[in-house]
Amino acid sequence: MGQATKYYKHPSPFQFYKGGSLPSLTLAWESWGCLDEQKSNAIILFSGLSASAHAASSDEDSSPGWWEEMIGPGRPLDTDRFFVLCVNSLGSCLGSTGPDSTAPSTKAPWRLDFPELSIDDIARATELVVSHLGIQHPHAVIGPSMGGMSALAWLKSFPKRTQKIALISTACASLPFALAIRSLQREAIVTDRNFNDGRYDDDHWPEIGMRLARKLGMITYRSAQEWDQRFGRRPQDYFPHQPFGMQFEVESYLETHARKFVGQFDPCAYLYLSRAMDTFNACDCDDGLIALFDRSFTGHALVLGVDTDILFPAHQQQALAGALEASGSEVSFEILKSTKGHDAFLVDSELMSGPIRSWLQ
Amino acid sequence: MGQATKYYKHPSPFQFYKGGSLPSLTLAWESWGCLDEQKSNAIILFSGLSASAHAASSDEDSSPGWWEEMIGPGRPLDTDRFFVLCVNSLGSCLGSTGPDSTAPSTKAPWRLDFPELSIDDIARATELVVSHLGIQHPHAVIGPSMGGMSALAWLKSFPKRTQKIALISTACASLPFALAIRSLQREAIVTDRNFNDGRYDDDHWPEIGMRLARKLGMITYRSAQEWDQRFGRRPQDYFPHQPFGMQFEVESYLETHARKFVGQFDPCAYLYLSRAMDTFNACDCDDGLIALFDRSFTGHALVLGVDTDILFPAHQQQALAGALEASGSEVSFEILKSTKGHDAFLVDSELMSGPIRSWLQ
Repeated sequence: MGQATKYYKHPSPFQFYKGGSLPSLTLAWESWGCLDEQKSNAIILFSGLSASAHAASSDEDSSPGWWEEMIGPGRPLDTDRFFVLCVNSLGSCLGSTGPDSTAPSTKAPWRLDFPELSIDDIARATELVVSHLGIQHPHAVIGPSMGGMSALAWLKSFPKRTQKIALISTACASLPFALAIRSLQREAIVTDRNFNDGRYDDDHWPEIGMRLARKLGMITYRSAQEWDQRFGRRPQDYFPHQPFGMQFEVESYLETHARKFVGQFDPCAYLYLSRAMDTFNACDCDDGLIALFDRSFTGHALVLGVDTDILFPAHQQQALAGALEASGSEVSFEILKSTKGHDAFLVDSELMSGPIRSWLQ
Repeated sequence: MGQATKYYKHPSPFQFYKGGSLPSLTLAWESWGCLDEQKSNAIILFSGLSASAHAASSDEDSSPGWWEEMIGPGRPLDTDRFFVLCVNSLGSCLGSTGPDSTAPSTKAPWRLDFPELSIDDIARATELVVSHLGIQHPHAVIGPSMGGMSALAWLKSFPKRTQKIALISTACASLPFALAIRSLQREAIVTDRNFNDGRYDDDHWPEIGMRLARKLGMITYRSAQEWDQRFGRRPQDYFPHQPFGMQFEVESYLETHARKFVGQFDPCAYLYLSRAMDTFNACDCDDGLIALFDRSFTGHALVLGVDTDILFPAHQQQALAGALEASGSEVSFEILKSTKGHDAFLVDSELMSGPIRSWLQ
């Protein structure tokens, strides 16, 4: 974690939504801009599955963040006006407590003894930092991808605390295609001989499983249309040729992404977060999504999706927008045209900037 | 292989398109209906990657074939009129010579010493059986999925031999999404510790890799829309619950398919056929697809696709139909509406029956 990362150490036990608890928590966070005296200008930004709290660069850490183009002076999340806060998700491995953290009782990593993680736990852990900073009423809450689920869970646990929510390329629950993809990613990891029921170490690390999981992820994060234009059937000559090895440029692209990912992300953290996305269901209350928004939100919502997203298809954002409208909120809803698929929110910031800027003004 | 399977043993060497040769070949085939005296009523049916020659049941083998609903008296491939021939693809493991066959020189399976396989080789090997039966001018040639590629390769090698060709849910070449999926399937197999550079045996068999490959295949053979309706988020209770194991019905569906596949299909045969689909390119002649059809086909073509196919998307069938029309052939072209995705040709026979029946009449 970089120089800009701060840590909130929560000294009390934390109860997990589905049972189990941890004696204490550490939560890594970063912020940009200044919190005003009334603490009324905060934007809470929830992240996707594999992202850290480092959403943007700063004086303390000049490396680009995962939403670099969106945060800064004059940018859509304008740090001349707003205090932007991003907390690394509970259960991750990028500064916050997760399965790879040391269990006090054994002095070894928790791994599979970590309690079952829910998106609800991520929302409530993030709120510990929000409260610690004395923020009672965030100006806005924003969540792309898994972060959108965390934002929905936050609304559920902390109703009517904000009047602006942005749900981007997300859904109230995952559908079977996404469930199938993620279950296959997890299967690749747990069947790697080095996974060894979570007892891996640096010398015996489930690299094969993590590589497959990352490549499969990349296939679903982007779109076939983008790849047709970008790679076509061009051969690859970057990596050595081996029997049944890489032959086409699209294969070397996936390989490059897999190599970057390996060693950067803890396999158990991946499993816990992935499963949390599967089990999350904002509509699981008896009276459905409209009732959830009735209880938890009144204000101006932004719902954005992308026409080529296969992981969180556009009809899922349509459903969120519909429920928000039905519950009486003002809703800005747009399905953006981009070949960048689910990852458009990360890599097509020009596209997202306009709607987010308008909604925040 | 069942009682209905016949074997043609080709006694002479067979040269592979990309180099290498085999001293002899065995080709497994089945047929339905009677070949007329002029040998003018034959339909050559090329199969998909994992299918055998057993396309339909018969008196000798009552088990249903992979195109059961399409072949028989009064069915679209009407065996009261036609002699339908299906040959197991060269390189497969379901009766025809492939990487799992015994190499005469070593008395062991060829495995990775099998010559590199091209779709062109499958077409030319199939033609050995066609010639052996004395069929000079098949009434029609039909190929779904990989079989469509084989049909195109057959046209290229044996131009103007038929006046009817049906290309179903196929393409002149694979695009990056399909290349990426198949490369990941192969990676799962070759990185399985039991694969051992092809030196697996019954006690050390790359089951984990083959299971992942099959599940990933199933994800791309069907459509998200079908699964939304069929499974939704229903939990599964069929298989025991384990940490990070199956939780939703869609996962148990994939598991059931993987279990059926494991042990039924040779891993090396899978690798060779999969790679052959990647490298095939009917447009790789200098003058493109229209010129290929100019040289090889005049008659009535049927081109069918399915709107939810993500492996061979509809614009690829559109391109085939366009090139066939531009080369002066009569073309019946339809993109069918079905939630069954790429597998519609296998499981939505009602949909395919009408267009195939009309085209053959």
